[in-house]
Amino acid sequence: MGAVLLATKPNNLAMWRDALLAVDPTLEIRLWPDWGQEEEIDAAVIWGAQYLQELRRFPKLGLIVSMGAGVDHLTLPPGPPPGVPVARLKDTMLTQGMAEWVLLNALRFHRQDPEYRALQASRTWEELPPPVTAERRIGILGLGEIGGATARLCAHLGFPVMGWSRGPKTLDGIETYHGPAGLDAMLARTDILVCLLPLTPDTLGVINARTLGLMPRGGWLINGGRGGHQVQEDVLAALDSGQLAGAALDVFVPEPLPADHPFWAHPKVFVTPHAASFTIPSSAAPQVVENIQRLRTGRQLVNLVDFAAGY
Amino acid sequence: MGAVLLATKPNNLAMWRDALLAVDPTLEIRLWPDWGQEEEIDAAVIWGAQYLQELRRFPKLGLIVSMGAGVDHLTLPPGPPPGVPVARLKDTMLTQGMAEWVLLNALRFHRQDPEYRALQASRTWEELPPPVTAERRIGILGLGEIGGATARLCAHLGFPVMGWSRGPKTLDGIETYHGPAGLDAMLARTDILVCLLPLTPDTLGVINARTLGLMPRGGWLINGGRGGHQVQEDVLAALDSGQLAGAALDVFVPEPLPADHPFWAHPKVFVTPHAASFTIPSSAAPQVVENIQRLRTGRQLVNLVDFAAGY
Repeated sequence: MGAVLLATKPNNLAMWRDALLAVDPTLEIRLWPDWGQEEEIDAAVIWGAQYLQELRRFPKLGLIVSMGAGVDHLTLPPGPPPGVPVARLKDTMLTQGMAEWVLLNALRFHRQDPEYRALQASRTWEELPPPVTAERRIGILGLGEIGGATARLCAHLGFPVMGWSRGPKTLDGIETYHGPAGLDAMLARTDILVCLLPLTPDTLGVINARTLGLMPRGGWLINGGRGGHQVQEDVLAALDSGQLAGAALDVFVPEPLPADHPFWAHPKVFVTPHAASFTIPSSAAPQVVENIQRLRTGRQLVNLVDFAAGY
Repeated sequence: MGAVLLATKPNNLAMWRDALLAVDPTLEIRLWPDWGQEEEIDAAVIWGAQYLQELRRFPKLGLIVSMGAGVDHLTLPPGPPPGVPVARLKDTMLTQGMAEWVLLNALRFHRQDPEYRALQASRTWEELPPPVTAERRIGILGLGEIGGATARLCAHLGFPVMGWSRGPKTLDGIETYHGPAGLDAMLARTDILVCLLPLTPDTLGVINARTLGLMPRGGWLINGGRGGHQVQEDVLAALDSGQLAGAALDVFVPEPLPADHPFWAHPKVFVTPHAASFTIPSSAAPQVVENIQRLRTGRQLVNLVDFAAGY
């Protein structure tokens, strides 16, 4: 039997090892960079593109599992070793975390929380006009695992929810749009825009002056996708002109967000440090082990990345 | 046929009149204080105890509808005219607003938003430990219309939810407690305490040094009930000792919260000005009209207040 190589931040290695062993105690696990005999490694579980070049060392490598949902960072050169399939995670905890983060920010904006915080700071007892859930339209870019779950959760709360994807999709209770014309049509009706897309050449910079300008004035942006989805200067300009009333951003270009970036001190921007959602090893381990067992018994691998589509 | 007297803040009178007429255009409606012939008034729709004394003028008054869920303010002297039944609202929009406000604050605390806001203020890119929804126990005081709906919503998100009421109740997926012993048992397991009780002599001051002290250290308080539920000095002391990590308060004694009250500037307190939830006249009008029609056709009135129970 082969060995599994774990490669991620040093302080996460032991947690991942323990989580995988809890599912299958017979696994032989090696922690980067102590991989032992190179020809023993048949699967690698990694987080980060910095390991991709070194993975070419392992002649029997048959599977790479990336410890997250988004894989855009793996598409840049050198990319994974040719012919080695890459799986990503579709993890309920990862999905849960992102849906919670979106919901926190959607409720923050919907319920005028920034305005109430400002009233509190000035010790002002003043009711603002009641928010009307049935009239607050949420538009979600991306209807994959995470976008779909987030859309359903927002709809469960009573918001009118729309969703956009590259190709046509149907989701119960969600008004769906697709393609370039669908994007413009959805934006024109979107009060709260939520980005949960994969980052691909097609979605790079999708949040820009033109698309933000299609939204009704005074809307909000919530980006939990990738920093590359937003043209950051255009987001700032839309905030400063009042086209956007606020933005909750978890992702940036570059990360970490530089200390002198205007987002940090912007009164309408809510920054989190790419922390909306985490892979919890104990939650993700079963599907990782499942894929390793499929590899070793010659069955079809699951959750494989389609590098042509980019996710 | 009789006439309906509306009595509330002057700038809300027209909205209520229009909402009632939209449901039943044949209603004869009088706006406080222009009630016309006193013997024509058979129903009064009011918001505030200040109208109760004057309601004794109307010899044929058969129904008072209070434009809210809580009626504690109507229980003080002089109270409603003897023998006149009082109905309160059980309104889906009122329930929706409160559930949203609770959820916003539960997510704020659960997802370490105050800590992330402080990190943003110091331009610090730092991930905090991932919050684990399945381990964040929410305890809800009050399982009426609003408490029950809020409990179900929190459970839908994946939080372990407990609920406490005066007498025994069962709710699918909610661990329920009742009576004094049940209160202590629930508090000992509660990370986020949510108060959605009616204010009665039994629930006055239920949030105090003793009960807050039963919670695990570092929990949070969310009070959407009434200011009288919380001993405000005890809440402050619990925040300052670290027993509570934060509080979201919509209700106070007195209201408006005086400008020099320590809650306003407390870094761990999130104040809203009794604005968690509003009665939306268009949403509440059908049940008000229903009760007026029941009165006039001699049928059983609904949503009546039980002044012995206090709600």
